[in-house]
Amino acid sequence: MMKKKDVKIHGVNGISLSSVHSGMYAKKRLDLSILEISSGSNIAGVFTKNKAKSPSVIISNKNINKYCPKYLIVNSGNANAGTGDEGLKDINKYCKKLSLAASCKTEEILVFSTGVIGERIKTSNIIKSIPKLLKNLCTDSWIDFSNSILTTDTCNKIISKKIKISGKIITITGVAKGSGMIMPNMATMLSFVATDMKIGKTELKKMLKKLTESSYNMITVDGDTSTNDSSILIATGKSLLSYESLTLKDKKIFYKCIESIYKELAKKIIYDGEGATKFVTINVKKVNTKKQGKEIAMSIANSLLVKTALFAQDPNWGRILSAIGNANINIKNLSNITISLGKILIFKDNKLYKKYNEKLAYKYLKNKNIEINVVINTGKEETTVWTTDLSYEYIKINAEYRT
Amino acid sequence: MMKKKDVKIHGVNGISLSSVHSGMYAKKRLDLSILEISSGSNIAGVFTKNKAKSPSVIISNKNINKYCPKYLIVNSGNANAGTGDEGLKDINKYCKKLSLAASCKTEEILVFSTGVIGERIKTSNIIKSIPKLLKNLCTDSWIDFSNSILTTDTCNKIISKKIKISGKIITITGVAKGSGMIMPNMATMLSFVATDMKIGKTELKKMLKKLTESSYNMITVDGDTSTNDSSILIATGKSLLSYESLTLKDKKIFYKCIESIYKELAKKIIYDGEGATKFVTINVKKVNTKKQGKEIAMSIANSLLVKTALFAQDPNWGRILSAIGNANINIKNLSNITISLGKILIFKDNKLYKKYNEKLAYKYLKNKNIEINVVINTGKEETTVWTTDLSYEYIKINAEYRT
Repeated sequence: MMKKKDVKIHGVNGISLSSVHSGMYAKKRLDLSILEISSGSNIAGVFTKNKAKSPSVIISNKNINKYCPKYLIVNSGNANAGTGDEGLKDINKYCKKLSLAASCKTEEILVFSTGVIGERIKTSNIIKSIPKLLKNLCTDSWIDFSNSILTTDTCNKIISKKIKISGKIITITGVAKGSGMIMPNMATMLSFVATDMKIGKTELKKMLKKLTESSYNMITVDGDTSTNDSSILIATGKSLLSYESLTLKDKKIFYKCIESIYKELAKKIIYDGEGATKFVTINVKKVNTKKQGKEIAMSIANSLLVKTALFAQDPNWGRILSAIGNANINIKNLSNITISLGKILIFKDNKLYKKYNEKLAYKYLKNKNIEINVVINTGKEETTVWTTDLSYEYIKINAEYRT
Repeated sequence: MMKKKDVKIHGVNGISLSSVHSGMYAKKRLDLSILEISSGSNIAGVFTKNKAKSPSVIISNKNINKYCPKYLIVNSGNANAGTGDEGLKDINKYCKKLSLAASCKTEEILVFSTGVIGERIKTSNIIKSIPKLLKNLCTDSWIDFSNSILTTDTCNKIISKKIKISGKIITITGVAKGSGMIMPNMATMLSFVATDMKIGKTELKKMLKKLTESSYNMITVDGDTSTNDSSILIATGKSLLSYESLTLKDKKIFYKCIESIYKELAKKIIYDGEGATKFVTINVKKVNTKKQGKEIAMSIANSLLVKTALFAQDPNWGRILSAIGNANINIKNLSNITISLGKILIFKDNKLYKKYNEKLAYKYLKNKNIEINVVINTGKEETTVWTTDLSYEYIKINAEYRT
């Protein structure tokens, strides 16, 4: 895990933020934020594939494709999902207020919500907080922002990097939230990343899709895709350095840097997975396609029996084998696969490996970070998925949430 | 649930059984059984679709299609899965012994195993038990048989019925086992049903497939399909009444009776689901196809967030809505659906139902038997799936199993 002292958060030129306690929770905590995006920025977004989309997602998805957003408004404590037309009207109410106060069109606002599903959102709390939010906008409020979007999360998730490209210093800063209802499909619960690199809209969209595929779309806590997943990438262009004009080598440097931010944010969600006692990396190697690898890795990652065995620190590898057998893939012959825990080879040549030492496996599983390595031996691709174990605490959190 | 006094178990003419304690478990308990099937019987089987099939499943699936089985040998305590060629050789060893002792071909034996995955089976224990098993064969040992196949089950699962058809009394008796690793795909963990009705092999196969689809394939405890699922239907023909010669009305009477047995056995598995505190019936109505209905119902049934809310007796219907939205179906518009808990209407016209009384919903969820009713309003089909909640006890059982 990241050491606390490593965390330095850099403002991104072109982005101002502010957060308040609007009263979404009984507890006094930050729960509502605004991001102001300077003109000339480009913004890309990917949203949940859950068919019961929150009105927030419906509006953001519509506006991001037609207009160039100037403000994001983000609340925790209420997902505004399962609220239908009333939910849409509620959003319109507070977006109208924001548009008047900030002199923009309501269509230039994107809306994000996270929290309990099925309850009306407290529009009056939002409306009365807008003047204060606009007054306090500043470039250094990323940490407050990262805290304001949390729900069952036990810690904030924020990464910030500076990187020298083509003689210029480029900044990338991003936040995410998520802990349960996590198996993002095109996006995580909520993620906002900004850079001062100049990137064209088409390129930015393409980049976000690719970034999402290798980060948020590779994690699962409980196999549940939320109604509100949204992931936003903003390129303000304030550095005046244009991505499209970079050499191929510099493009790669930038992409590698931003990809590491997405992967680290995704991993932070798993480290903070509800009730998690283990951080589990599942590598599926030598497989025909990345998609096939993902099917296998996700089948292992979402198996309750694998997850409970990991919680018990029991090298019950038969459950891993069974989960591989349940993956939605077209491989008939599993007799060439190998299964290892970390570097401890367990299953090979269609049977328990001769030199397998179960005591070592028990010892290995006492670690917080566990690697499950599966080699399919049918192709050349590989995929990595990150997940949690399943503990009593997960049940407790989800049996008690709302009460 | 069935009252104990209702349970009368009838032997099926043409089937003899016996069970012993062979020593698969440390504890002294029945763990090994043989069924002898009289000549002239027809037998159909369906097996797991898990690609990491147990050698038992591989052998049974091969033999059932080529030969007319005379013996079934069934053990608990070891699934003989993940054992590859060695597992096949082990089975050959004890089947050879049985074939010699019982004067049949090894190919006339079907093999079933359930228990821990990935460990070699104790062939010597089986071999030394065979003489005693053969000596004690008798038609009345169904209850012992039902007990001998249990693993984490807390109770046996057995149903027996007599029914008068075309002036003759027909008997159907069946047993099943299963509690965890339950989301059968073509069959449950283990199920054996026998009748003295005469049924042709083709018809029997067709019948079993249809019966499985409406019973075992409609249940889930934890979404995990096992490596050993097998479901066997035997028609001994000893009643001399032929199914094919029945009137359409009598065929329906028989089918309804045997279908009720399959559904009751499937429900018994759910009642005994690992750690279950609730028996949950999910009805999805007015849907285009039964398959679509099943996708929706299974998405609800396998959602950890729905399951933990049910455990908490919390009418957190937003999680049901989100699970519907996650179903692998091609419905874009969910605004016409309704969601009810029992008869309590909650969600209608794309919002919380005006007259919804949350107190009543909390009260309703205190019942052990819960119904979730979802109306999709796009078609005329309907599907029912049965499932459990997810409790601390499930984690305990699966974190402690094997230790």
